[in-house]
Amino acid sequence: MLTYQLENKGGKCLYEFLYDCIKKDILSGKLPAESRLPSKRTFAKNLGISVVTVEASYSLLEDEGYIFSVPKKGFFVSDIKNFNMTEKSEENEIRFPEAAAPAGNSEDDGILFDFTSSRTCTDEFPFSVWARISRRILSEKQNELLQNPPAQGIPALRNAIANHLRQFRGMNVNPAQIIVGAGTEYLYGLLILLLGFDRKYAVENPSYTKIPRIYRTYGLECRFIDLDDSGVRMDRLEESGADIIHISPSHHFPTGIVMPVSRRYELLKWAEESDDRYIIEDDYDSEFRFSGKPVPSLQSIDIHGKVIYMNTFSKTLASTVRISYMILPEALSRRFSERLNFYSCTVPTFEQFALERFISGGFFEKHINRMRKLYQNKKNLISEVIRKNEGSHRIGIFGEEAGFHFLIRLPDYIDGKKFMENTRAGKIRLNPLSAYYSGAPEEAGRFFVVNYSSIPADKIEDAVKMIFDCLPAQEPVLR
Amino acid sequence: MLTYQLENKGGKCLYEFLYDCIKKDILSGKLPAESRLPSKRTFAKNLGISVVTVEASYSLLEDEGYIFSVPKKGFFVSDIKNFNMTEKSEENEIRFPEAAAPAGNSEDDGILFDFTSSRTCTDEFPFSVWARISRRILSEKQNELLQNPPAQGIPALRNAIANHLRQFRGMNVNPAQIIVGAGTEYLYGLLILLLGFDRKYAVENPSYTKIPRIYRTYGLECRFIDLDDSGVRMDRLEESGADIIHISPSHHFPTGIVMPVSRRYELLKWAEESDDRYIIEDDYDSEFRFSGKPVPSLQSIDIHGKVIYMNTFSKTLASTVRISYMILPEALSRRFSERLNFYSCTVPTFEQFALERFISGGFFEKHINRMRKLYQNKKNLISEVIRKNEGSHRIGIFGEEAGFHFLIRLPDYIDGKKFMENTRAGKIRLNPLSAYYSGAPEEAGRFFVVNYSSIPADKIEDAVKMIFDCLPAQEPVLR
Repeated sequence: MLTYQLENKGGKCLYEFLYDCIKKDILSGKLPAESRLPSKRTFAKNLGISVVTVEASYSLLEDEGYIFSVPKKGFFVSDIKNFNMTEKSEENEIRFPEAAAPAGNSEDDGILFDFTSSRTCTDEFPFSVWARISRRILSEKQNELLQNPPAQGIPALRNAIANHLRQFRGMNVNPAQIIVGAGTEYLYGLLILLLGFDRKYAVENPSYTKIPRIYRTYGLECRFIDLDDSGVRMDRLEESGADIIHISPSHHFPTGIVMPVSRRYELLKWAEESDDRYIIEDDYDSEFRFSGKPVPSLQSIDIHGKVIYMNTFSKTLASTVRISYMILPEALSRRFSERLNFYSCTVPTFEQFALERFISGGFFEKHINRMRKLYQNKKNLISEVIRKNEGSHRIGIFGEEAGFHFLIRLPDYIDGKKFMENTRAGKIRLNPLSAYYSGAPEEAGRFFVVNYSSIPADKIEDAVKMIFDCLPAQEPVLR
Repeated sequence: MLTYQLENKGGKCLYEFLYDCIKKDILSGKLPAESRLPSKRTFAKNLGISVVTVEASYSLLEDEGYIFSVPKKGFFVSDIKNFNMTEKSEENEIRFPEAAAPAGNSEDDGILFDFTSSRTCTDEFPFSVWARISRRILSEKQNELLQNPPAQGIPALRNAIANHLRQFRGMNVNPAQIIVGAGTEYLYGLLILLLGFDRKYAVENPSYTKIPRIYRTYGLECRFIDLDDSGVRMDRLEESGADIIHISPSHHFPTGIVMPVSRRYELLKWAEESDDRYIIEDDYDSEFRFSGKPVPSLQSIDIHGKVIYMNTFSKTLASTVRISYMILPEALSRRFSERLNFYSCTVPTFEQFALERFISGGFFEKHINRMRKLYQNKKNLISEVIRKNEGSHRIGIFGEEAGFHFLIRLPDYIDGKKFMENTRAGKIRLNPLSAYYSGAPEEAGRFFVVNYSSIPADKIEDAVKMIFDCLPAQEPVLR
């Protein structure tokens, strides 16, 4: 009979400790797959604890997939050998291109500070408001919840989005041109189906590595267009032969470049030259602009219907709210109705109603205002801590106007590779700018992307100190 | 100032009547887009009704997208001119191939009985249980709800699905090989990414028209494999050069053929002949088998890892529960982890936890048992009503062992085209078998698919009577 020494539980609750013990035995193989666990009653009696405690442990183990229940037979150990427990998938997660992935990138091997994750703190999500709205929708919308939503998403949500964009971003959007979908990745796929497999796609170089990765899974190669200080270089774009270019003009990832108006018009002009050309504007962190005057979206200055605007709520709310949207120009919106309208909307009606109320009730605006302040404070704190450090002359900061990340630059006399090795040894996760390039210039090896969104505010001093500690003790060579 | 004659409200509640009036004015253009509605207070005073009533009408109009609110400014009329109010998308919805679509197929122009919809009655969904589970999850799972689910779906749900399949379908499934996604269409897309754009895909002929349509949006042509009484013809499959064949062996749509074991083994043997070959088993209505011994799934007799099993909860629960799953053979499961694991799961964590509890709590089993009886009764009723009709010699019934549909056959002396015309004129929606074919044999024009799932039980007599009324008054010609 399975037994454990419950007196060793330390500071843990009894049920947590029991959960830990059983989980450990499952992971180690001591409790093999398919083996039956003792009944709750017998186990409780045997350990001298209450049935409720055993129940709580079993319930937790079941929820996490370690055990499963067979009605009237009891609880059994799951077959976990192929169970990729660390598998994760994050919207807009920044990843190394497969070839360049450093060891440990995909596993959580004791990492202390992760500057590569763009996950926002879940503590900040106003869950109680969301839960209250959800409960009301369950009570009030029974009929609506059982109806199929239109392929594009429910009208009320599309109206709320249009309204938000009007007020917040000064955009004039027809809700009929909005398509709601389960995440940006899904919408990218849908866009490929809409624009065609015979189009030539391009991304900025550097860029999110996930975008070219998505194109690749659709059997498409994508072109990488080099940047200058204003964003994509027009000469390179012309040379590439691309029809579709994916950009983030409000705040480029990862360089932080804000595309000036002149380049925006050049891009629009480029797109107008052919019916097949379109610009995908990814406005992923426009809600988190801290300083400078707000930049109007490319979509709002596009009069010829060449811009596909994309944004997501996963970033501004919580990644579990998997709702993104795109705004199609009129011609593409018609093409969508003709060709793709038979695809069911991938977002449940329930979440659509909840988000609609969340926006219309003013909670979304309140939340992003709060988050913006919070991240601005965090950003200020982190740059202040860097600047006050005695080694501050060795770290330059770039692109702090918006979003959740900025760049740091090491001086020429410091060996960037050695620094990377030190961060890995020191259990910091930090990506060099070169990781986001296809064919990175040498210079990119001395820039590093600091994404501070997942670092708690009270750990920032420690985290920055560790970055400094990882700098190799080198000094400029005077020649 | 906007005003209405509220004394004409008839049997309606006041707020419903007011909602109707305003909606009518919006649809007619009398209230143009962007025009401001009177404030609730002024409007209420003007009409001599309470503010709460106006509030209820506005709220309903807003939820349905006819109006939108701008905080501190009031309510405005939406731009509805491009608002495709009738747009619909249904899982497994049966549609005509575009070319053959009869007028009015996509619009709800006063149809009395729709025998083409496979939508199940939403009244039957145990919404109160679902809502109770949902409320509990909102209270208990705050932390879990804010975590990203693994790409394949949360382990607890995959365990629950494996457990259900074990008990209900006698299948031995490793939860690690299950992929959960937002609907079957989405999973088809994912499968194409997994199997490759260079594979040759095939479907049964006839088949769901949606499947080839999906392949087409991915730029893939698919082959149509003719059937004999046992299902796909092996000679035609070999000739086609296909690598991947999509079948529904438990209960073929629309013919109702149940594939015998011998053909199943032939198919498996065919698949084993090349590493590239796979069979997609769509088990879409296996829960609704009424009679005969249960047919083991192809997946459960597949020892070489050649079968991809697919099923959906949208059909068994409600189409708004957009959760489908597939079970990949081990080799494909590994390939998924390597290549596609970076795609985020498209089903919100919330729905996954709710469905897990719904299954594990025994509610799913209870529900499908109830539904099975209900549909069996409905099916019995409809075939009895047909058989008792004085014209019953003119309608033969085929394929009633399972699911939500069967075929009727008209005798040779009746003009099938004339019958179709009559059904259209009589506001019945009914598809000829030929609509599901690519190159239908002449014979198929005399078979019609009767999908009774969306017809309420108390309307069945009327619906059947209308079918008979549509039969042209022809008698056998004696030669």
